[in-house]
Amino acid sequence: MPEAFEQDYPLQQLKQVTKSLNSGQFVQVRSMLAQTAPCDTALLLESSPHKIRRMLWQLVDPDLRGDVLEELSEDVRLGIIAQMEPEHIAAATEDMDDDDLGEVLRSLPDTVYQNVVGAMDSPDRERATQALSYQERSAGALMNSDTVTIRPDVTLDVVLRYLRLRGELPEGTDDLYVVDKHNCFLGVLSLTTLLTNSSDKVVRELMDEDCESIPISMDESDVAQLFERHNWISAPVVDDNDHLLGRITIDDIVDVIREDAEHSLLSLAGLDDEEDTFAPVLKSSQKRSIWLGVNLLTALLAAIVASFFENTLAILPVLAVLNGIVPSMGGVAGSQTLTLVIRGIAVGHINQTNQRFLLLKELAIGALNGVIWSVLIAGVVAIWQWDFKLGAVLAFAMFMNLVAAGIAGASIPLILKRMKIDPALAGSVVLTTVTDIIGIFAFLGTATWLLI
Amino acid sequence: MPEAFEQDYPLQQLKQVTKSLNSGQFVQVRSMLAQTAPCDTALLLESSPHKIRRMLWQLVDPDLRGDVLEELSEDVRLGIIAQMEPEHIAAATEDMDDDDLGEVLRSLPDTVYQNVVGAMDSPDRERATQALSYQERSAGALMNSDTVTIRPDVTLDVVLRYLRLRGELPEGTDDLYVVDKHNCFLGVLSLTTLLTNSSDKVVRELMDEDCESIPISMDESDVAQLFERHNWISAPVVDDNDHLLGRITIDDIVDVIREDAEHSLLSLAGLDDEEDTFAPVLKSSQKRSIWLGVNLLTALLAAIVASFFENTLAILPVLAVLNGIVPSMGGVAGSQTLTLVIRGIAVGHINQTNQRFLLLKELAIGALNGVIWSVLIAGVVAIWQWDFKLGAVLAFAMFMNLVAAGIAGASIPLILKRMKIDPALAGSVVLTTVTDIIGIFAFLGTATWLLI
Repeated sequence: MPEAFEQDYPLQQLKQVTKSLNSGQFVQVRSMLAQTAPCDTALLLESSPHKIRRMLWQLVDPDLRGDVLEELSEDVRLGIIAQMEPEHIAAATEDMDDDDLGEVLRSLPDTVYQNVVGAMDSPDRERATQALSYQERSAGALMNSDTVTIRPDVTLDVVLRYLRLRGELPEGTDDLYVVDKHNCFLGVLSLTTLLTNSSDKVVRELMDEDCESIPISMDESDVAQLFERHNWISAPVVDDNDHLLGRITIDDIVDVIREDAEHSLLSLAGLDDEEDTFAPVLKSSQKRSIWLGVNLLTALLAAIVASFFENTLAILPVLAVLNGIVPSMGGVAGSQTLTLVIRGIAVGHINQTNQRFLLLKELAIGALNGVIWSVLIAGVVAIWQWDFKLGAVLAFAMFMNLVAAGIAGASIPLILKRMKIDPALAGSVVLTTVTDIIGIFAFLGTATWLLI
Repeated sequence: MPEAFEQDYPLQQLKQVTKSLNSGQFVQVRSMLAQTAPCDTALLLESSPHKIRRMLWQLVDPDLRGDVLEELSEDVRLGIIAQMEPEHIAAATEDMDDDDLGEVLRSLPDTVYQNVVGAMDSPDRERATQALSYQERSAGALMNSDTVTIRPDVTLDVVLRYLRLRGELPEGTDDLYVVDKHNCFLGVLSLTTLLTNSSDKVVRELMDEDCESIPISMDESDVAQLFERHNWISAPVVDDNDHLLGRITIDDIVDVIREDAEHSLLSLAGLDDEEDTFAPVLKSSQKRSIWLGVNLLTALLAAIVASFFENTLAILPVLAVLNGIVPSMGGVAGSQTLTLVIRGIAVGHINQTNQRFLLLKELAIGALNGVIWSVLIAGVVAIWQWDFKLGAVLAFAMFMNLVAAGIAGASIPLILKRMKIDPALAGSVVLTTVTDIIGIFAFLGTATWLLI
């Protein structure tokens, strides 16, 4: 009898493997890994520090390595491939799906690529060339050629006999694709339609002709949105002349959805898309240093702005004490708007027709927030420092900066997008610069004017 | 012949609808909406400002409303339901899947819920009670009861005849579930196995007994991870005694994956999970104000820390100019680590066995970053202000704060998780508080000690 899935199974296994590795029981680990499903081995590798990961990989059965590679996340996969011999890479890619094969090959340095392709046999080499011919992040690069095609003018009985003769169907097959003799896509016949209709009916009567096909050049995020909206399990891919080229399956789409969502999350913190949690220290610091460098520049810029008011600060040091509050609130309010707009762009809710409304809405929220928080901060500071004029100056700066944060948070990603710059990556640094500088100017400038 | 999908179709449509609405051509919009697929209508509603959304909803064919509601994101759906009459809600939920029905009913205020259930007929009411009996965010709440079950001791031929007799299969059926006479789950027979084997074979010989079933109480994120790892299209759900209760399909899992990934993104900015981009201004500001309030407290706390050094600031106003740099860099470095750890927890890569390694790794990155950026900032400031001692003080503070940021960024989410507090929601505010206060103390404290 099948057993219900144990929730902490991978964790238990990870503990076991780590223990065995530490005590040098390699044979035991090897046999454990041989009995582990490739997807679980992949999780194990992803959850291991890079040194243990390298040892583990050596202990994975060579016959299973291709399957494990397919399941790994990109960054981890690349790290492992970088240490493999070209002929081993060629062997591991033999049973890979076309899309994974393309991804692996694309990631190789030129010389290694030549060696890997050189180590392949002729049909594999052809498959590799084909897989590489599609643009990265397009429907073509997600596609597999493992379609099952039938003709429109045969009966279901013929189809049933053909399938039995054919034997196994590709994983995730839910539809048979109906094509004419020129391989032009005509429609789909779902397995459920095939199974629930009388076998003397003809395919043409039952096939779904309204089924949408995906153009080979469509962007993968658009493909994912279609899958998500229409609840597809698989979808046919066609060229410009409607020739059937292959199909895309939901498992690859799930990866795209996950990656797209993580892209926004990681980019907003200036991290690389596929950053591996357990990468070596040097590699990680290198990846993060660009972002820190950019931030240092903006922090210096803010310092330069503050330096214009050095005389004011010398006369009224309490301004230095309070100077962090307005930029901080502006940064938080702005990044709320920014995050929401970036998410809205990513899921396709924001477009030309509603941009204006969005901008006005965020402006209104900024103004409303501005009123609330400026009154509050004015009260707190007036009582704390017993200086009502100081409270009023802080309130004015707070209001100005929260309004600016609303406008900047909504418009920066839209402008960046129009300039074809990734809003998730560049948005937050531009925003912080704006809210920092406006915040400092508004507070110290008004204070210089009114309090000195 | 089916046409390849037009990429900007929803945008075109949105423009068209907005134009027609603005010129008052309601009849035209109504007939347009009647020809639109429910998933596209849902996108249209989600992309519309709330006033237009309300008008649009009135123009949606009542027979299609249930389907559209199913496709809507939670926040938007709730907004629409809040304006519907109980009997209309009851009618719209009639054809809903069990999981969507449960979600809708759970979201209703108590009195409305009573009225809606009162307006249902008896079988629907029973279904509603059943759907509500499962815990929110559990496998049960994701599940539908639309399984197709067969017995192990019949031949494929019997199964084929049964399916033909039965007619239509539920959407997304890829497996038939094999149960004994007590409805205990025994295994699955995939449609592809059914189609590619000789019809005189017996189900028991061909069924997959190793197939894992999902316990009804499993958390939905864990279920999603299983689907993702194993590339499932559907999976059976069982109770503690292995009785088959229903199945979960990939389309609902895609929603869970999207929501989980967005949860981290939105929570890190202090936004509500299901925040609707086009919600009314008042509702949005209210949702965002808690976060701004918390941030105001931490900014005040930082100001209080700075106020300890007011004398120092009065003597050396240049310190006030530079005071923002160290906390800013600490905040950015810390949030990089924080984001990565939160992502790692969400995808299941971080657990007890590798926490220690992770902490040490981030500490090392913090120290390395600390050396790089403190040397750089010391040089810049020493030259700018022509004060080498000031440069050294800034460098020391920078190093301390970047090390603190690494430790805090890695440990805060792990500690919060152990305290069962959502790290994505509380993490960044705790982190900023730590890096702000340590940054100010380290810089102004050292300066007071060495420069005054």
